[in-house]
Amino acid sequence: MKTINIGIIGYGVVGAGVATLLTQKKELLEARTGAILNLKTIADIDITTDRGVELGNTALVNDALDVINDPDIDIVVELVGGDTIAKQFTLKALEKGKHVVTANKALLAGHGNELVKTARKNQVDLAFEASCGGCMPIIKSLRESLVANNILSMSAILNGTCNYILTKISQDGSLFEEALKDAQKLGFAEAEPSLDVDGHDTAHKLAILNSLAHGMEINLKDIHVEGIRNITPVDIEFAKSFGYTIKLLAIGKVHEDHVEARVHPTMISNANPLSHVDHSMNAIAIDADATGKTMLYGHGAGMMPTASAVLSDIADIARNIIFNTARRVPILGYPEDNIKKIPILPMDELYTRYYLRFEAQDHPGVLSQISGILGENNISIKSVHQKGRQSNGKVPVVMITHLAKEEWVQKALTKISATDSVVGDPIVIRIEEDA
Amino acid sequence: MKTINIGIIGYGVVGAGVATLLTQKKELLEARTGAILNLKTIADIDITTDRGVELGNTALVNDALDVINDPDIDIVVELVGGDTIAKQFTLKALEKGKHVVTANKALLAGHGNELVKTARKNQVDLAFEASCGGCMPIIKSLRESLVANNILSMSAILNGTCNYILTKISQDGSLFEEALKDAQKLGFAEAEPSLDVDGHDTAHKLAILNSLAHGMEINLKDIHVEGIRNITPVDIEFAKSFGYTIKLLAIGKVHEDHVEARVHPTMISNANPLSHVDHSMNAIAIDADATGKTMLYGHGAGMMPTASAVLSDIADIARNIIFNTARRVPILGYPEDNIKKIPILPMDELYTRYYLRFEAQDHPGVLSQISGILGENNISIKSVHQKGRQSNGKVPVVMITHLAKEEWVQKALTKISATDSVVGDPIVIRIEEDA
Repeated sequence: MKTINIGIIGYGVVGAGVATLLTQKKELLEARTGAILNLKTIADIDITTDRGVELGNTALVNDALDVINDPDIDIVVELVGGDTIAKQFTLKALEKGKHVVTANKALLAGHGNELVKTARKNQVDLAFEASCGGCMPIIKSLRESLVANNILSMSAILNGTCNYILTKISQDGSLFEEALKDAQKLGFAEAEPSLDVDGHDTAHKLAILNSLAHGMEINLKDIHVEGIRNITPVDIEFAKSFGYTIKLLAIGKVHEDHVEARVHPTMISNANPLSHVDHSMNAIAIDADATGKTMLYGHGAGMMPTASAVLSDIADIARNIIFNTARRVPILGYPEDNIKKIPILPMDELYTRYYLRFEAQDHPGVLSQISGILGENNISIKSVHQKGRQSNGKVPVVMITHLAKEEWVQKALTKISATDSVVGDPIVIRIEEDA
Repeated sequence: MKTINIGIIGYGVVGAGVATLLTQKKELLEARTGAILNLKTIADIDITTDRGVELGNTALVNDALDVINDPDIDIVVELVGGDTIAKQFTLKALEKGKHVVTANKALLAGHGNELVKTARKNQVDLAFEASCGGCMPIIKSLRESLVANNILSMSAILNGTCNYILTKISQDGSLFEEALKDAQKLGFAEAEPSLDVDGHDTAHKLAILNSLAHGMEINLKDIHVEGIRNITPVDIEFAKSFGYTIKLLAIGKVHEDHVEARVHPTMISNANPLSHVDHSMNAIAIDADATGKTMLYGHGAGMMPTASAVLSDIADIARNIIFNTARRVPILGYPEDNIKKIPILPMDELYTRYYLRFEAQDHPGVLSQISGILGENNISIKSVHQKGRQSNGKVPVVMITHLAKEEWVQKALTKISATDSVVGDPIVIRIEEDA
């Protein structure tokens, strides 16, 4: 039986998960792949902390170059995270002719095109199932299963921290800060939560998925990103009263000559299967021209779900090594020469429906002034909802618009904010029809 | 660019879908696979009906042997259906060294082991993504993505006809016969519906999925199968009042030295994501030791969703042909020598919870007699629910049991049916905890 040597760089939670699967599932993996997947070396700056894994003959080293420069190692698993030193390691490994498996979405979203080029030059594989949606096979689905489909749209819940917090606000009426603290206590949120709650992690994943779905270069910088810090129980209660749920969605849609790519809190109908995806679970809904609507659902993060996705990549590459067919499926789903630059629609040009909430003064003429400004900006109002006066004497006024252009909405809101009729910034939540 | 020649046998709905994708998506498929997927020949006994597909140079022939014996054809797509003539065609094609793609679950469930052996002998691929769950990539997920997982359990809605009918009964309070007629009118059910509504189609799919999940030989005959003909609005209303939904589930679970494999109407909690899968949609929930709970959701049948799955197999095999790596992934997920015979638990030995509904006489002592017989048979009752007297003077009595053995339950029910306390056969619906 052929032996495939594997080196891991980064022995944190996911690294320990991958090491656990490679050691505990040795027999299963051999039975399935017909190869011995041998964990030869693990590199980490901390090699003293006990990760609770029975490593056997695996070497634990401090220097990542001991993995990258080892001529016996076939597959390098990059689990360092971030996009600085991880980028150096990954580039070096590819240049040394190693196949690389990574779970690093920040790295791919920021530098994926360069990595793909380097992998091509060195005729090696670069695999990243674990980078988006944890254990859900979204990368394989887009690259292989949906091969005969044009992907029309994707809507996805890709960040467990945000989904946990939104579920908590929705179920307990907690404020954002309370729900965040709770998530941190339970290990669903980092001490520095901004990468998650401000939507950046979701945007990293959307940049990768959009590339695979549409055969386009990875483009992070043009994705519009908003997080969930402004979501309040008040808005969630209003949403409920309309039969809606608020989720942080990654939205990717294709048009004639451009795509949409945006991350923001979104109201979706309770008939949309994504509305039932709660707590830290993730899901990806895809509408494709042959399959129609499909959805994947599962753990988007965590030690073993992520490790399971890394192992599916390792097994794929092991089969490629056995059969001498590196790069059998192109890294981004299309051969590199067929990958296009497709522009992302500037946010100002988006047409969608809006939920707008104002803290209005409780005196006559306010409603007419707000709706007047909206009307002047071509924004047509579908319904108006008003709740009793709050303790501060202000009245929450909610308006649901028909399809309107983002540019018009932003212009109107700036003008409304400048009047005496409202206090504070209006809350804007975009509505997706049947995403 | 390499040309891969494809022949289709069976030009019905799915055949026309596959032909549509191969012709309309020619450029997309070339861009993705780097090969020309050329539909050389279509064979069907009816070649006069216009299927609405622009076929170009494709030959339409009457004789399947014109496909099977054509030395230029690389991939044969079997879309005849059934397990008699389709079996002959498939065996002959494999023996001629053709790779075969099929959507035929009845064929695989009944004769899969023989087909796998024949494919092995001739060193060709046999692919069947479209056989289970339509466009959902369940076969690829089990064979490739979940490679490092032990599958603990699967629960799946695999028949759109049954799910449509159950949704209809649940939403409109229709009787089974009315809902079936409605499904037939809308094209969701066949004129001869028994393959679907009696659970056999679901059992075919479960036989295939269990094999892939557990590395076992395909075994249809030991799967316990019940359909949905006995499901009434009364039971669905009771289920709702407990926070449950009734679905026809395929259930596969693994134990130390055997597996469970059963198809029957099942009560599941509304917290279970499967409970929200309505109308003709399908879904497969998998609990695996590394990933935890995941779910795939999508169209389980229909022209284009099924054709999309067939195309994913064709593309996979095309890549194998280009790289000369036929059988890169073993047909059943494990190399044939590693596939075991694993026994299926006899239904009598199943332990689960039960919903039992009796049509009881409205006189004293009835409840005590029923619960007495259950008690004598070790069946402990969790709760009793009684509704007002019906027009026939009978009272529906529902009992929910704690975990009980199927054998005890059947014995007790036989005894209860023989008393004067109840009329007709009791209704038995098994309850799955958090499937």
